[in-house]
Amino acid sequence: MSDELTVPELQRRLAEFAAARNWQPFHTPKNLASALTVEAGELLEVFQWLTPEQAGAVMADPDTAHRVRDEVADVLAYLLQLCTVLEVDPLRALAEKIERNESRFPAP
Amino acid sequence: MSDELTVPELQRRLAEFAAARNWQPFHTPKNLASALTVEAGELLEVFQWLTPEQAGAVMADPDTAHRVRDEVADVLAYLLQLCTVLEVDPLRALAEKIERNESRFPAP
Amino acid sequence: MSDELTVPELQRRLAEFAAARNWQPFHTPKNLASALTVEAGELLEVFQWLTPEQAGAVMADPDTAHRVRDEVADVLAYLLQLCTVLEVDPLRALAEKIERNESRFPAP
Amino acid sequence: MSDELTVPELQRRLAEFAAARNWQPFHTPKNLASALTVEAGELLEVFQWLTPEQAGAVMADPDTAHRVRDEVADVLAYLLQLCTVLEVDPLRALAEKIERNESRFPAP
Repeated sequence: MSDELTVPELQRRLAEFAAARNWQPFHTPKNLASALTVEAGELLEVFQWLTPEQAGAVMADPDTAHRVRDEVADVLAYLLQLCTVLEVDPLRALAEKIERNESRFPAP
Repeated sequence: MSDELTVPELQRRLAEFAAARNWQPFHTPKNLASALTVEAGELLEVFQWLTPEQAGAVMADPDTAHRVRDEVADVLAYLLQLCTVLEVDPLRALAEKIERNESRFPAP
Repeated sequence: MSDELTVPELQRRLAEFAAARNWQPFHTPKNLASALTVEAGELLEVFQWLTPEQAGAVMADPDTAHRVRDEVADVLAYLLQLCTVLEVDPLRALAEKIERNESRFPAP
Repeated sequence: MSDELTVPELQRRLAEFAAARNWQPFHTPKNLASALTVEAGELLEVFQWLTPEQAGAVMADPDTAHRVRDEVADVLAYLLQLCTVLEVDPLRALAEKIERNESRFPAP
């Protein structure tokens, strides 16, 4: 893994991966937003029957830890691909949201 | 917005924001995974009744474009906060997933 | 509310409601499955930051109780409308699933 | 399947099923609302990459039709179990919502 780990670089690799498999026709905003929600559900599934204490310890089990990283990757993959097709800069969107929240929820 | 737009920097700002409001007790893995799914649903809501063509044009309307960026930010915020509490590196998780998918779905 | 409270009767009323507003073109299986997921997320939102104890007491507060009943209704409405367009009998599907689960998870 | 197919009867069978396996401690409102959302996502997954036309024809394929009925059953099971623990009458909640919507969205 010599490639740089940045959001734009990962977006480029995801686009290249989809293009090489002719998957772009499936990657409409609506389909990608659906897939994002489905994957978020799969990530939540890891935690759904656990007590708060058990949920806090999921990374101690190597199989569950792998599953968590795998589902985090799927959620991020669809979020970044959605941002690519909509031309949204996800990091800028988040930075601006944090600023709006700083006014909306002033720290005590 | 002089701060650098990187994932670790945004994770730092989100943690600082939550700490300043004493929100950390709510930010359990289970709650954050729930919130991530809820926000993914809110993002999908933008597209749910649209035709594929209408869904492709959402960014042309300034209000809808703002709503999309706002929901993208919320999804990313909860994903990054979940990664912080679980000590998962989201960009590395995605890079490793892309590599596994390259073996799993060989390009034609 | 003189109408009988049964699933087929509610499906009939939902179909009539949508037809009177010319909403059927929007009620494709894909759109209804999206709307179902979005509404399930809105129901989960009621509980997402609550402790298990607080979540168990949501019906004690009249406003939250109203919100819960409202979101339950939305989830059920989209599930029943999806069943109508796909010609799935939801109660039969559930009865058959319970029977399969009785073999799959034998009681101790 | 001699049992009557009504919502209260299915709620009784689901409660009996859970009690026989000592699953009630897991069936908190928060966990059931999470499971409902996860299953709604699994139902949406059937449709996520399909065109509207393909999505309209899912029941023509016996395997996909079985998968759809299975996921519909899972969504309904968790919705009914959530209603049982919260003492919400799902059919009444829906009938009341339809009435509210009749005022909110008057037919043309």
